[in-house]
Amino acid sequence: MSRPKNDVFLRALLGEPTPYTPVWIMRQAGRYLPEYNQTRARAGSFLDLCKSPDFATEVTLQPLARFPLDAAILFSDILTIPDAMGLGLYFAEGEGPRFERPLRDERDIGKLSAPDPTTQLRYVLDAVTQIRKALAGAVPLLGFSGSPFTLACYMIEGRGGGDFLETRKMLYERPELMHHILEINARAVTDYLNAQIEAGVQAVMIFDSWGGVLAGEAFHEFSLRYIERVCAQLRREREGQKIPRIVFTKGGGLWLESLAQCGADALGLDWTVDIGTARARVGDRVALQGNLDPAVLLATPEVIRREAARILAGYGYGNGHVFNLGHGISQFTPPENVAALVDAVHSDSPQFH
Amino acid sequence: MSRPKNDVFLRALLGEPTPYTPVWIMRQAGRYLPEYNQTRARAGSFLDLCKSPDFATEVTLQPLARFPLDAAILFSDILTIPDAMGLGLYFAEGEGPRFERPLRDERDIGKLSAPDPTTQLRYVLDAVTQIRKALAGAVPLLGFSGSPFTLACYMIEGRGGGDFLETRKMLYERPELMHHILEINARAVTDYLNAQIEAGVQAVMIFDSWGGVLAGEAFHEFSLRYIERVCAQLRREREGQKIPRIVFTKGGGLWLESLAQCGADALGLDWTVDIGTARARVGDRVALQGNLDPAVLLATPEVIRREAARILAGYGYGNGHVFNLGHGISQFTPPENVAALVDAVHSDSPQFH
Repeated sequence: MSRPKNDVFLRALLGEPTPYTPVWIMRQAGRYLPEYNQTRARAGSFLDLCKSPDFATEVTLQPLARFPLDAAILFSDILTIPDAMGLGLYFAEGEGPRFERPLRDERDIGKLSAPDPTTQLRYVLDAVTQIRKALAGAVPLLGFSGSPFTLACYMIEGRGGGDFLETRKMLYERPELMHHILEINARAVTDYLNAQIEAGVQAVMIFDSWGGVLAGEAFHEFSLRYIERVCAQLRREREGQKIPRIVFTKGGGLWLESLAQCGADALGLDWTVDIGTARARVGDRVALQGNLDPAVLLATPEVIRREAARILAGYGYGNGHVFNLGHGISQFTPPENVAALVDAVHSDSPQFH
Repeated sequence: MSRPKNDVFLRALLGEPTPYTPVWIMRQAGRYLPEYNQTRARAGSFLDLCKSPDFATEVTLQPLARFPLDAAILFSDILTIPDAMGLGLYFAEGEGPRFERPLRDERDIGKLSAPDPTTQLRYVLDAVTQIRKALAGAVPLLGFSGSPFTLACYMIEGRGGGDFLETRKMLYERPELMHHILEINARAVTDYLNAQIEAGVQAVMIFDSWGGVLAGEAFHEFSLRYIERVCAQLRREREGQKIPRIVFTKGGGLWLESLAQCGADALGLDWTVDIGTARARVGDRVALQGNLDPAVLLATPEVIRREAARILAGYGYGNGHVFNLGHGISQFTPPENVAALVDAVHSDSPQFH
């Protein structure tokens, strides 16, 4: 299994020289694309889309057909693990994910176990295989998982968003219960990402979407510690190719120094962080991925070019930058604005390499 | 008009020596108190409560009757200014504030003007007078306003919460329109806070609840610059007493160094920030207020004592700390847990003074 034809993304994650700055976009296969909405309508629901390798392959490839992006990301959901744990994932229309059976008491928590991805998450691995085949080596495929803590937030609350008060209450009042959940989640995330690597993903990303709701000390004890544990047990290579890891804690700008030591090759940055300052703080310990404010993509191509140039110049000369948004793309983004962004990054970035 | 009998809060804000660490709680007059809910039911709606000086006085005093807090905070809403501008504030049950007439286009924005607080926000000033009288000098009264940017978020979106994408889009695409709104808001906030000072508040706080949704550069240009402008034009003293100013940017932990130079005497810290690190970063330029995770108050008194002690020790020896939560108190907080917190701060803090 050789490197993809365009391996700029993988090299940038590892801090190796590249001729320009690679770019992909969080949630690039999403509702801002009319063809995505059509496929989703054919599939039935969002979950049907995720659970069908055919549909998942189709939507994974859609943004690549439109834009010369430097990476594909597996189309899936971060909540496949708790779903496989039996919590009953469903999507309330317009309100995001919910669980039918959230963790409500000690007995539920005691019964929790890490799913076997090769059987219980087979549909994801099948999608990986099928997407790799369809990509035919054009660009690398990025796999992903939610972080142990972020999964716990959804599992305890039964839903996303809000301030996760129940979760925060539990970690103060019953830290041993929280650690029990997180140990199981760390095992599950490790097995899941290793199975994705085995199936063919060429890099992995851990989305710690809710680590930023924690007090600093709690973040280190209940989120970062378990991300470290996952990183320490991930396969480092497959068939002679190193598998880079990206860790993205939304709202984690205060903790970049410790994040840079968690075992990741690259850190995702949300848009609140100044990327130049971030680079100075982490040095060459990790590459950085980000971090355009997704709201910029709602403005004009002229504004997009200006702001993209600002991020590129902010990172400055040298390797180790993967361009991305600082959060998932808004469903209200005009697709032509994404074209303008990808073009701006590709045409403006060679001067920094 | 002499200092209140208990002026520990005012002295701590100014970095002066105090025998213990003062404590008050954001949203201390709120739904976690049964007596508050009773008054609110009698008043009719939340807005009726805010607009009646009698009711506002009643609920302002309720937490002080239960707990030996070191400050009272004017009961009001941060959206009184845009309401007085004619945007039509109302509260959708269980969904928070809404405006009937949000700023939708350039013409609406062109018509905007700063209200005259002495007429259009008379009810707030009357409440201040009445609360001061009822307090009889027991503890100081804190006035407040939303920041110019935070008010703009609500005015543009017509509602709170979410990610304020319209607002962020406008500042990238039409920065001159955004600056126009912010200039008017800065004038309005200045006039409003000066009128509150004139009416008798003994300290003021600017709530920049949404500055943290901005990219760093945008935060400085669109939020901090206007907070500075307000601070520069606030009355510094009244009847020989200095009026301390507190600035609280939720999610502003990355920018404490520049916040410390905005003209505030004290910075509010949300719970994600480590207070010891924050103190090291700002030096003795400003006092700090905060920053217990509000979720701690959902746990047991034992946990509350432990976590309060951790914040006190984190700030360490010396003056310039006002204890508070890192965000408003949850409506699900048992009132007896607030008693435990206030007692913990008062009994554990003298060793640091």
